[in-house]
Amino acid sequence: MLSLATSTGPEWANRVLPDLGELLVDHAHCEKKAAGMAVNLVFRYAQHAYLMEPLSRLAREELVHFEQVLGLLDLRGERFRPLRPSPYAGRLRRVCRAHEPARLLDTLLCCALIEARSCERFGLLADHAPDAALAAFYGGLLASEARHHGVYLRLARQLAAEGEVAARLGELAEHEGRVLAETPPLPRMHA
Amino acid sequence: MLSLATSTGPEWANRVLPDLGELLVDHAHCEKKAAGMAVNLVFRYAQHAYLMEPLSRLAREELVHFEQVLGLLDLRGERFRPLRPSPYAGRLRRVCRAHEPARLLDTLLCCALIEARSCERFGLLADHAPDAALAAFYGGLLASEARHHGVYLRLARQLAAEGEVAARLGELAEHEGRVLAETPPLPRMHA
Repeated sequence: MLSLATSTGPEWANRVLPDLGELLVDHAHCEKKAAGMAVNLVFRYAQHAYLMEPLSRLAREELVHFEQVLGLLDLRGERFRPLRPSPYAGRLRRVCRAHEPARLLDTLLCCALIEARSCERFGLLADHAPDAALAAFYGGLLASEARHHGVYLRLARQLAAEGEVAARLGELAEHEGRVLAETPPLPRMHA
Repeated sequence: MLSLATSTGPEWANRVLPDLGELLVDHAHCEKKAAGMAVNLVFRYAQHAYLMEPLSRLAREELVHFEQVLGLLDLRGERFRPLRPSPYAGRLRRVCRAHEPARLLDTLLCCALIEARSCERFGLLADHAPDAALAAFYGGLLASEARHHGVYLRLARQLAAEGEVAARLGELAEHEGRVLAETPPLPRMHA
């Protein structure tokens, strides 16, 4: 699914949904980090004009999701708060190469994979959510994350040849699957 | 005007408008930095729940402006590119205190002053722009920046007592005026 090398079974949703409050706090942090990542790329790569507008739009959409999750937390009487993150994203990006343009290519592909994994997991949460409103919320996010996956892949293909993108995406997807499998089973979007 | 201790005369607009291309590139960077600042505060202060939604919205609005300036650059056949920034914002924030909650208060007030200065200068650009479309563009931004100034002041007043906010805002406004007066006269929004 969406370039992922491994798939998550429905037992994941059954494991995390009993801790929905903490899962939503983690989810808010994930949206914030996705926005922060896109903004960081805009700062780091001002010389790549083709990245600017798509990443700015993507950051805005992640911030809308951040605000939506904050609203959901508020409705449920939960408080947004600092939370120990899953080591997933840090470990995933540890294999990004340090020299340009490989660093940018790897970063774009890691972002594409994170979006893909979020998309997969929102699908599971939509299927297993305890109420229809929550299922609809996750279903809506699933579509956005699939689109964001596509944005990152399109930008990667503007930077490098199709064959190089496909080969590196395959390697990073294998790595992503291993990182996820080794992540401690906390109530987190990427654990 | 909007808490500023000094005012910019119309000669500023006449000095920078002949370099409109470079001014717009700098302006795009300013919108990006304003968004980045708000996102940084969201990252740094997750324990202050009251900051999250207003700063996320503000960041989104700054990103919309960033995209609008990119569009304008494109229309004018100018390219967004890295640009040596004015030392203004760095020098302004150098007096922020290092301990909390003073650090957050000073940061919010510096952001309020930067928005106020942008607002003042968009007003001058609207009055002196070489065509009506550009004047309307700057006029629209002026209203947003005035609102953002108000957002930062409101957040400062949620953190500290009215008297403390007013006193520190006065001190920082004097500092802002001095920093701006010492900034080299490049075609920049804050120079």
